[in-house]
Amino acid sequence: MKARVHVMLKNGVLDPQGEAVRHALGAMGFGGVTGVRQGKVIELDLAEGASEADVAEMCEKLLANTVIESYQVEML
Amino acid sequence: MKARVHVMLKNGVLDPQGEAVRHALGAMGFGGVTGVRQGKVIELDLAEGASEADVAEMCEKLLANTVIESYQVEML
Repeated sequence: MKARVHVMLKNGVLDPQGEAVRHALGAMGFGGVTGVRQGKVIELDLAEGASEADVAEMCEKLLANTVIESYQVEML
Repeated sequence: MKARVHVMLKNGVLDPQGEAVRHALGAMGFGGVTGVRQGKVIELDLAEGASEADVAEMCEKLLANTVIESYQVEML
């Protein structure tokens, strides 16, 4: 079984990586891009019986820095 | 309007970052994790009228290294 975790910077936290992408897209002629936020996606292969709560615990302890990042777990 | 782009390493391409996460999870007692792949997620705020084809062009030209990475565009 698989799980997918999205980790994004919380709103209000400065995202220099996303800002750099937005700037680069503008310089390349893609004018219609008004904002970019970049985050991580982590795909986990899990043993049978793993639950969403287990994955949430992994996020809390390792995958996300919950001070500045939010996460979202999706079981596939 | 918004678009979300997932950029993942292609199958077969070594993912040392994912491997490090897998190893760390194992060391923390999360035994049931057999594989981890880490990728990027990019959220774009677009001007009205932007199409999926525009976003795909951004991926080809900047957001993904199509030699080793695959991307997936999702219009929100």
